[in-house]
Amino acid sequence: MSAPITLYDIPSTAPGNAWSPNVWKARYVLNYKGLPYQTEWVEYPDIELLYAKTGTKSHLTKRDGVTSHYTLPVLHDASTGAVISDSAEIARYLDKTYPDTPTAIPLGTDAFHYAFNDALENKFGALCQFTVVTTFSILNPRSQGFFRDTKEKNTLDGRTLEEAAPKGVHKEKEWARLRNDFGKIDAWMKEDKYFMGDVISYADFSISGWLLWVRIIYGADSEEWKDILTWHGGRWGAL
Amino acid sequence: MSAPITLYDIPSTAPGNAWSPNVWKARYVLNYKGLPYQTEWVEYPDIELLYAKTGTKSHLTKRDGVTSHYTLPVLHDASTGAVISDSAEIARYLDKTYPDTPTAIPLGTDAFHYAFNDALENKFGALCQFTVVTTFSILNPRSQGFFRDTKEKNTLDGRTLEEAAPKGVHKEKEWARLRNDFGKIDAWMKEDKYFMGDVISYADFSISGWLLWVRIIYGADSEEWKDILTWHGGRWGAL
Repeated sequence: MSAPITLYDIPSTAPGNAWSPNVWKARYVLNYKGLPYQTEWVEYPDIELLYAKTGTKSHLTKRDGVTSHYTLPVLHDASTGAVISDSAEIARYLDKTYPDTPTAIPLGTDAFHYAFNDALENKFGALCQFTVVTTFSILNPRSQGFFRDTKEKNTLDGRTLEEAAPKGVHKEKEWARLRNDFGKIDAWMKEDKYFMGDVISYADFSISGWLLWVRIIYGADSEEWKDILTWHGGRWGAL
Repeated sequence: MSAPITLYDIPSTAPGNAWSPNVWKARYVLNYKGLPYQTEWVEYPDIELLYAKTGTKSHLTKRDGVTSHYTLPVLHDASTGAVISDSAEIARYLDKTYPDTPTAIPLGTDAFHYAFNDALENKFGALCQFTVVTTFSILNPRSQGFFRDTKEKNTLDGRTLEEAAPKGVHKEKEWARLRNDFGKIDAWMKEDKYFMGDVISYADFSISGWLLWVRIIYGADSEEWKDILTWHGGRWGAL
């Protein structure tokens, strides 16, 4: 018998299949809560169709501020009929619907989690320029064409993925900036293991989602991942 | 007999004297905790001297990333000998030193408060362009010269304060952006009165400090303040 909860994710050729940082955030929440679920794989060109079919509401717009932006994760809960997009909204839904499971967004930290996401997007946005070509390379052919077309048109102002990837001195500078951004989060957390001190929260799943993404995209043996493991007392590998 | 705690603030010609949003944040914390303190007034050109005299450590650097940036508030606590700069660090110090008073940064939200400040600076930074000329106009002459010189050299790339103030269509657009930024915070807080729901925290004092600043700088009867009072269900005036 299938579990009532379905998590929709984007497939890849990477070992273990799942790679998307935002879907990983929702998956961490489901695992933390111990809720059974199954994964359904949706190629990029089919995400909009999934939204239409399930009546999912899009929280995001493209850069024009008007056109809907269709992203995963989407979670469908057959026991309530709810269909939710956005990993943080999924965490909120699961906290509310399954109050006997461990809380992802502890009481009083709801607005803080929005502020945290806002601050983190400003920082880890820099990661995308490094990973865009490698992400492309692990997708299935159907998704590759869609990914290249939409990225180059919507976020790279017509440059190709390969042109947009930082190179040489610029690459070194941007990588140093990324390390510096991680350094700020390290400073915020001081000696704490988790973002809230002793308590695990969605903030930790969010940082972990980004980190796992880098490890999957580059590979655990890559120079990039090994470099990150040396940053800030080895905090990121431990997390 | 004087209180052991002294809060250093920048004087002005505005009614009530105190106007600096960052000093107000620290003052809100002191008032919330019910700790007695006195205010000492320091003109802009004397802030660096205060740091030297009291051995205060500067947390900030100018845009070059190297030169120390001397700002108020500074808090001196004669009962412990501590001298602290930065309003959030003052809140942390007071929470730790006076554990029997109400907590400004509740347990588990320390890193969140850093993330919150980071997110807020990206938003309310836009306010400075509107208030720079008006702020100048309420300072005492000794501070006016210093304020103009350092702002024009360090943050306005040689433009005058008057040149930097947004005008016409650009002003309308920037004001709409500010309203939109406040709208994001409104959306984060949902129906809650305080940032943490039922619990007052430094996050509320921080937002209030920015709002009070606008009211003092423009005046309670100004078009700008009256406009803000109409935003997002009147939430900002109520706070």
